[in-house]
Amino acid sequence: MECGTSKIVGCRFSLHPMAGDFIPVIKGALEATDLTGVWKHTDDVSTVIRGQEQHVFNVIKAITLHAAKTGEHVAINATFSAGCPGDTAGDSYMDVDQEVHNHDETKQYVSSQFALYPMNNPDYMSVIYREVDRAKERGVFNDSMHYASGIHGDIHEVFNFYEETFGKARSDEHQHLVMTMSMSINSPSHKGDHHA
Amino acid sequence: MECGTSKIVGCRFSLHPMAGDFIPVIKGALEATDLTGVWKHTDDVSTVIRGQEQHVFNVIKAITLHAAKTGEHVAINATFSAGCPGDTAGDSYMDVDQEVHNHDETKQYVSSQFALYPMNNPDYMSVIYREVDRAKERGVFNDSMHYASGIHGDIHEVFNFYEETFGKARSDEHQHLVMTMSMSINSPSHKGDHHA
Repeated sequence: MECGTSKIVGCRFSLHPMAGDFIPVIKGALEATDLTGVWKHTDDVSTVIRGQEQHVFNVIKAITLHAAKTGEHVAINATFSAGCPGDTAGDSYMDVDQEVHNHDETKQYVSSQFALYPMNNPDYMSVIYREVDRAKERGVFNDSMHYASGIHGDIHEVFNFYEETFGKARSDEHQHLVMTMSMSINSPSHKGDHHA
Repeated sequence: MECGTSKIVGCRFSLHPMAGDFIPVIKGALEATDLTGVWKHTDDVSTVIRGQEQHVFNVIKAITLHAAKTGEHVAINATFSAGCPGDTAGDSYMDVDQEVHNHDETKQYVSSQFALYPMNNPDYMSVIYREVDRAKERGVFNDSMHYASGIHGDIHEVFNFYEETFGKARSDEHQHLVMTMSMSINSPSHKGDHHA
């Protein structure tokens, strides 16, 4: 397997509980999540996980949902990446079983914003517009805004959209794709009528 | 002025105080910062500011520093953007005085991670490697990692690097540039010997 040709998907994220006792919220969410499907490393600013696409999205959703269930106002910022030509085939669990391990279906309203960066693709704006249309079709589109699009709804529908769009926005010809996501949960700023 | 040809720089960011009384930290930082140089809009997930490049960086640094001075563990996630072909010339204060308004030089250690996304530029990996080298020359490079590079040091040196690299990584030929940044301050995870 050569650099840049791997199917590894990675996600670098930070979980931010707006609470004085933030450490147990973060550690509790990580401990409650089955992480066996992904490689993981934490530093002083963020955590990165790497592995098969479905495991990465399953784990991020599970961590987010566990943090949300504390009732605290939490935010998660994440960058999903695949196909970077500078990446290597190491630090991942690509040979594990494809079956995902986290199955909590608790409903939870989330409000988020995302941006797609299809790298080295001259037609990248078309990809972005197409995926925003997909959000509208899926019923999770919230608002247009500078530098991002608002996505909201139940956490499972929102992450289903993110996983689908991350898969659809890259191709064999244009493999390097980055997607950023900022998500806010249990916020006093969410309008009541937006809650699921 | 046509779409995509403007010199508008924008930054969409979220400030996350890991504190139960997070609202006064956020509002206090915004109120203590002179925002007259930029257009600003806040929604339920993030805030966006737009204007001349030096004003945008000056304002983001000032907001971050004011939040840091509360002593709380705060994180800031920001996406800087310029030259997006889908952008418009509105919602900015491009005709204001070029002189920046925030001049607080208080020292503050920060640890951060950044990534550059030069859009529609076939040579984008060279741009990224060159700017990481610039960080090493400036003495703010911390660590290599998947999907980002670690940048740390005094807040003023770190933001000087970010402003310089954001200017250097785009060109007339390749105007659309995105830079993401995650910054952590007053964190219990920072190693003591990293503190300025």
